Amino acid sequence: MFRPLQTLAGGLIAALAVTAAHAKPLSQEDLSVAEVLRDRALESSDAYSIVESLTVEVGPRPTGSEGDRRAVAWAQEKMKKLGFDRVYTEQIEVPRWNRGHAHARVVAPFPQPLVVSSLGFSVSTPEEGLTAEIVPFADVEELIEAPAEKVEGKIAFINKRMERTRTGEGYGPAVQGRSRGMRAAAGKKAAALMIRSVGTDSDRFAHTGMMRIKDVENPVPALALSAPDANLLEKMLERGKPVEVQLDVHNQQLEDGPSFNVIGEITGREKPEEALIIGAHLDSWDEGTGALDDGAGVGVVLETARMIAELPQRPRRTLRVVLFGAEEIGLVGAKQYVQAHRSELDNIVAVSESDFGADKVWRFDTRLPESKFDIADQMMQLLAPLGIERGNNETHGGPDGSVFVAQGVPAFGLYQDGTDYFDYHHTPNDTLDKVDPENLKQNVAAWVVMSFLTVEMEGDLGRVPTEH
Amino acid sequence: MFRPLQTLAGGLIAALAVTAAHAKPLSQEDLSVAEVLRDRALESSDAYSIVESLTVEVGPRPTGSEGDRRAVAWAQEKMKKLGFDRVYTEQIEVPRWNRGHAHARVVAPFPQPLVVSSLGFSVSTPEEGLTAEIVPFADVEELIEAPAEKVEGKIAFINKRMERTRTGEGYGPAVQGRSRGMRAAAGKKAAALMIRSVGTDSDRFAHTGMMRIKDVENPVPALALSAPDANLLEKMLERGKPVEVQLDVHNQQLEDGPSFNVIGEITGREKPEEALIIGAHLDSWDEGTGALDDGAGVGVVLETARMIAELPQRPRRTLRVVLFGAEEIGLVGAKQYVQAHRSELDNIVAVSESDFGADKVWRFDTRLPESKFDIADQMMQLLAPLGIERGNNETHGGPDGSVFVAQGVPAFGLYQDGTDYFDYHHTPNDTLDKVDPENLKQNVAAWVVMSFLTVEMEGDLGRVPTEH
Repeated sequence: MFRPLQTLAGGLIAALAVTAAHAKPLSQEDLSVAEVLRDRALESSDAYSIVESLTVEVGPRPTGSEGDRRAVAWAQEKMKKLGFDRVYTEQIEVPRWNRGHAHARVVAPFPQPLVVSSLGFSVSTPEEGLTAEIVPFADVEELIEAPAEKVEGKIAFINKRMERTRTGEGYGPAVQGRSRGMRAAAGKKAAALMIRSVGTDSDRFAHTGMMRIKDVENPVPALALSAPDANLLEKMLERGKPVEVQLDVHNQQLEDGPSFNVIGEITGREKPEEALIIGAHLDSWDEGTGALDDGAGVGVVLETARMIAELPQRPRRTLRVVLFGAEEIGLVGAKQYVQAHRSELDNIVAVSESDFGADKVWRFDTRLPESKFDIADQMMQLLAPLGIERGNNETHGGPDGSVFVAQGVPAFGLYQDGTDYFDYHHTPNDTLDKVDPENLKQNVAAWVVMSFLTVEMEGDLGRVPTEH
Repeated sequence: MFRPLQTLAGGLIAALAVTAAHAKPLSQEDLSVAEVLRDRALESSDAYSIVESLTVEVGPRPTGSEGDRRAVAWAQEKMKKLGFDRVYTEQIEVPRWNRGHAHARVVAPFPQPLVVSSLGFSVSTPEEGLTAEIVPFADVEELIEAPAEKVEGKIAFINKRMERTRTGEGYGPAVQGRSRGMRAAAGKKAAALMIRSVGTDSDRFAHTGMMRIKDVENPVPALALSAPDANLLEKMLERGKPVEVQLDVHNQQLEDGPSFNVIGEITGREKPEEALIIGAHLDSWDEGTGALDDGAGVGVVLETARMIAELPQRPRRTLRVVLFGAEEIGLVGAKQYVQAHRSELDNIVAVSESDFGADKVWRFDTRLPESKFDIADQMMQLLAPLGIERGNNETHGGPDGSVFVAQGVPAFGLYQDGTDYFDYHHTPNDTLDKVDPENLKQNVAAWVVMSFLTVEMEGDLGRVPTEH
């Protein structure tokens, strides 16, 4: 909960007085406007309607699909309605894949069906399916180290659990099996790969997601199992008899095709060539409606821009909203954006992406030169009353943002509480009802503070040395 | 949480002294044994292992299926292992139906897939599917009252929400659409029926369940939509354009076939012909593994019997565990049991079924003649410390139990907290992980008190006037 706005305002006036006395980089006037925007966002911002519109009127929008094309049209129309000065698309070239069906069932010793989902770009089984014994592995490393004869002809089953955390840091270790498991299984001539879903829920949904497929010779079908189904296989294996599973998987590998980054700008009044990029990704996985991933981000950044567009004057520099394409299959839109705009990267004052669900923002990370830390400190005066803590200076600015950060672009990270995010991530259960409109208001409040102050400030944020 | 056992014991000794002074129907010796059984159940009962065994080694067991046959074999073997004196089956004749597939998608104005599940015994669509506009109704009554021309050729969509309650009393009003909707839709020549799932969750699972299909002429396909999908249709309808849905449903109507009630007895030492029936149902719906519905009940009553079988002597009268077949499709096993044993019903001292999930028991209802209320009061001395309140005298003894109650058989109802039960009921998500082993121990503790005292007491429970 937020402290009452009256109390807030009192505290802020004192804080702003101190700020002015020390000649900090952000002006008291800008901070006052940001404060008004923040409080207006808490009262009346409506990112939720945008998420509703996207999920209801478009729905699933996997890269390069018909849904993706409709999302691109939707985004342009929405940006125009919201008062952007310039709306345009940039074409990208994307790998494409169509999910067909994935059926799995234990055939021995205890016949019963399993709930599975193909991982992104999984190949199919033979038409008649395949049946093989499963061999369990604690994690992908154990599979990589296993002798090939233990795996050949079998279904490798990576049974790694993901830890639930507020930061989502359990994802990194858990996702290894999904990223690298299929290559390891294919290298040992496994019949297929199955992984315990990379997720924190105990619902009977499999979590899909991307694999590293580049240069994998003779790829094999790769599936995620829901957590209850992974438990079931565990319990069957404990009973000591070979567990045989039948798989019937059909997917389509398609030719590469076009998709788009959709870009909208509030044009700067003084330095229009300089821009803050705030982003989200427009594509989603195909089984849910992409409300949390990343409809919420789309709603937050569009609503943030709308609020700034409504101000009596345009901000000093440009606010550029980029709705990236093809994030889910490897940050393809962001990579092609950076490639296409390499010569203009110095004009990007900072980047930030909202792509971690729809819970409240609780932490403000940055990636700034040390000389600019006082800007973040000033922003914190307005963010702290939203329940936001100052984090570290190591943000990558979100998944797509990281491609910019790798080129030295400064970044902000307004991180949502991710405790529940991986309950829904990449499942059919990622739907609108998981989004709380009030939480989105708090998100917009934080984003509008960071965004307005960045596009309005006199100075800039410099460059950040890249890690190499 | 329970009070420490030491405190309990102190309280009980005082309570038992009072009991003895008033010459209550249950002896202090019996109450003392029941107390020991209760406390042992809290420490060491293991109903969970039974639920695990059933869900892992058998899994889904819809009436008359291969899974049902394996469940019947499993149950007999388990009863023998647990030390029952007599284990037998009684064949019943059951309607049978095989779920095929059910695919639904909005084709206009906003194409996207929907998550649906056929209701039990739904017919199929034509091979090529069907496409029709949806017409929403607040509840089944509104559909029944609608003019036929509003419904003919359309997909009737009953969008009734279920209220979440501890007692499950929201189920009755909500289930009307499922029970009676298809008949109403068919009578008006609808193309199909879709209902918002009868459930309290907001997960993307449809809740299946039985319909009243008897004497419905020209039945139409009938589907449940997950709550998020019902919301989605609602939001689409709000946008004012006709919403067209394509359905592709295939199921198999089979000939009637055999199933079984599985019965195990701990034979009474003095009055073996008199029996308390404690029951659960062995069949489940096909999409989950039937952990909550009704694996938990099976675990609780089998473990209760096991504990009584372990006592140094057999109880005064028989404890009969009946695992009913075909509960889900209309209490078929219970009805045929009562039919087959009509002449012996006077020997059934009482009936009770555990079929409301796996949460803690919180209420003790009865159906006893008023002259026997002091027996329930004495039981309450041992139940109250488990956190159980005295309820009313109107229990039906559980779904299958109600068939006995209708014939005047007294009944007990040990009701679990049902707040979350309908989050999982009849979905693929009804899996073992939803069962808390500690809660099952509390269930067994309550059941063993009620069961032991009933089979051991000197007197009987009389008969209860039937409601007609």
